[in-house]
Amino acid sequence: MKVLPGGLGEVDGFLSLGKHIGIKTDQKDFAVLFCEKICTAAAVYTKNAIKGAPLIITKEHLQDHKAQAIVVNSRVANVATGQEGLLNAKRTTQLVAAELGIKEADVLVASTGVIGLQLPMEKIVAGTKGIKQELSHSGDFAEAIMTTDTVKKEICIEQDGFKVAGVAKGAGMIEPNMATMLAFMVTDAEIGAEQLQAALKTSVDKTFNMTSIDTDTSTSDMAIVMASGAVKNVDPASFQAALDYVCLELTKMIARDAEGATKLIICQVEAAGTADDAKKIAKSVINSPLVKTAVYGNDPNWGRLMMAIGKSGAGQMEENKIAISINQKPVVRNGQAAPQYNEQTLTDVLKHNEEIVITIDLGVGSAAATAYGCDMSEEYVKINAEYTT
Amino acid sequence: MKVLPGGLGEVDGFLSLGKHIGIKTDQKDFAVLFCEKICTAAAVYTKNAIKGAPLIITKEHLQDHKAQAIVVNSRVANVATGQEGLLNAKRTTQLVAAELGIKEADVLVASTGVIGLQLPMEKIVAGTKGIKQELSHSGDFAEAIMTTDTVKKEICIEQDGFKVAGVAKGAGMIEPNMATMLAFMVTDAEIGAEQLQAALKTSVDKTFNMTSIDTDTSTSDMAIVMASGAVKNVDPASFQAALDYVCLELTKMIARDAEGATKLIICQVEAAGTADDAKKIAKSVINSPLVKTAVYGNDPNWGRLMMAIGKSGAGQMEENKIAISINQKPVVRNGQAAPQYNEQTLTDVLKHNEEIVITIDLGVGSAAATAYGCDMSEEYVKINAEYTT
Repeated sequence: MKVLPGGLGEVDGFLSLGKHIGIKTDQKDFAVLFCEKICTAAAVYTKNAIKGAPLIITKEHLQDHKAQAIVVNSRVANVATGQEGLLNAKRTTQLVAAELGIKEADVLVASTGVIGLQLPMEKIVAGTKGIKQELSHSGDFAEAIMTTDTVKKEICIEQDGFKVAGVAKGAGMIEPNMATMLAFMVTDAEIGAEQLQAALKTSVDKTFNMTSIDTDTSTSDMAIVMASGAVKNVDPASFQAALDYVCLELTKMIARDAEGATKLIICQVEAAGTADDAKKIAKSVINSPLVKTAVYGNDPNWGRLMMAIGKSGAGQMEENKIAISINQKPVVRNGQAAPQYNEQTLTDVLKHNEEIVITIDLGVGSAAATAYGCDMSEEYVKINAEYTT
Repeated sequence: MKVLPGGLGEVDGFLSLGKHIGIKTDQKDFAVLFCEKICTAAAVYTKNAIKGAPLIITKEHLQDHKAQAIVVNSRVANVATGQEGLLNAKRTTQLVAAELGIKEADVLVASTGVIGLQLPMEKIVAGTKGIKQELSHSGDFAEAIMTTDTVKKEICIEQDGFKVAGVAKGAGMIEPNMATMLAFMVTDAEIGAEQLQAALKTSVDKTFNMTSIDTDTSTSDMAIVMASGAVKNVDPASFQAALDYVCLELTKMIARDAEGATKLIICQVEAAGTADDAKKIAKSVINSPLVKTAVYGNDPNWGRLMMAIGKSGAGQMEENKIAISINQKPVVRNGQAAPQYNEQTLTDVLKHNEEIVITIDLGVGSAAATAYGCDMSEEYVKINAEYTT
């Protein structure tokens, strides 16, 4: 497996653009992805009961498991916008389809930004004019979908003769449930519709769905994968591994770039009674504000880890069997401070690493799960107290 | 109903003390409550699977539903301390019982503070010497149980000839499940053991258990009520109302004094399909970091309220029936911005009120629930990044 520089445009047949059309004050706010062929496509969506208008249109357009383009705007999420919002999302796909000379039903749409505002349609009408000429292999799709993100998130890999590339955005309102804020993956591998949907669900369940920045599940979460089919006879296991890798790397990029975050936290739970228990505990640790602030403060306050394990709701747990390590240094053994535990050493570990791996051994079974998150700084509060207005 | 100044010592028969015995550097850290008679007592405890040693001893001592004293220390929670921790909690009750000349089984014990440290028993031995002489009607129990609290939390009320008083502590690691961080209530009303337990559960379920400061359920949560029985023939409904009032006032004091909080947030959900739906939505709003930071920033970002409603997991919800008001000003009608919504007016409402009431009308049924919380400031992060070490 080889990691290539660049993003979606590295995969043969895919072209994109990212540009400023005036929805944001001066940053890029409009992105289009186009494939020369009609692709097999699969998607997963947020489980938030309030869903953005674009999700509803995209779901309709994906009923045939086919797609040829994706259009995305940032700054306005087009959520809680009623009938007008639905018509605007639909109209956006019509405008893009007309410009690209493809079917409206083959255009998918996503929006991200503030909830409750209507899309500025006159800007979208003007912005879509002439997009076909603007598409390229180096179009800046990843940058144009950013909101509070500080870096663009893209990756492309090659293995066994096929490529998989992906871009994602998201820095807050992130505890995805079925998908992440927004993630778009493309491949030139030939994959059937059903298999593609299954592969996406498998990848997402252990990557994006195991991430939490702030426990707030967005109304706009969506992950889409498009497969052009140019490379035939791809081994399904190889494709799954490649998609897993791309989704995991994008997940880590999201957690690292989380609003106000200074550290990536990875929580590995081992020897749990059930996979569900392992997942609950890993998520409980990643989501605990007290764990997150302790990591930010370089404070090896392992009592907060015990608290987060205990409050998780996991069924099988014996306090005196719990062992915890941080970046492989022993912290807890048999439910109490480990004999080798040294506060100063652990403080230094926290201080000098940007990737903090918390390993929890429950000692009661053989199930495991890993969750991804970040620390919490004053900056998270600042960003979110000041956003919108 | 009349609110009296003072706390536990206002109720006839109850004496207390709060003093410094050297567990903290220079603040009060040791509290004792004593009743001249043996009381009927009831308690509820945290549902965190990791439980502090004092909870285990208190539960044992309450098997007969009788108690005469409570001893509490702050700074060290005596959690994740193994067999030694259990022995220390037990020994503390023995020391107090010997000094007060009562049975060890009639002494309850609670600890609050850092998890993972052993109690400094030599200080507790020295500190318990002569406590009987130090007890008074104005003993400072409420102050001695504080950790990151900035104000002491106590209340006493009188109605229908009986009194109910309560004290509580807690400013972080607060999403109680069965009880709050620590709350102690006393009454001179005569109440049977079973009835007292039922009354406590009823009160706690709609007050302490509907509070969340940071979603982190402590390992030490406990609420205890002691009834001396001096006032006979108390009407059960009157007692329930009095206990409800005391628990609710203590709940609000906790939310108001939450770590870094500048505002109390009350979320009232109405016209929900089921009580469980109403509760889930109220808690989801109160717990959302994005709602909390928006309130802190005086930003009427109602899209975040829609997000929090949607992610709650409530079963019955129709987006276009949702109505939201903030301090009685209309914000959302039919799932979209209300026609009367004015951003500047709402910004001013948020800016000029320390109590923010978010009312959500789901329009699908008749169930209701109210949850209590607070905003989130940079100070919450600062306090918790720096606590412990």
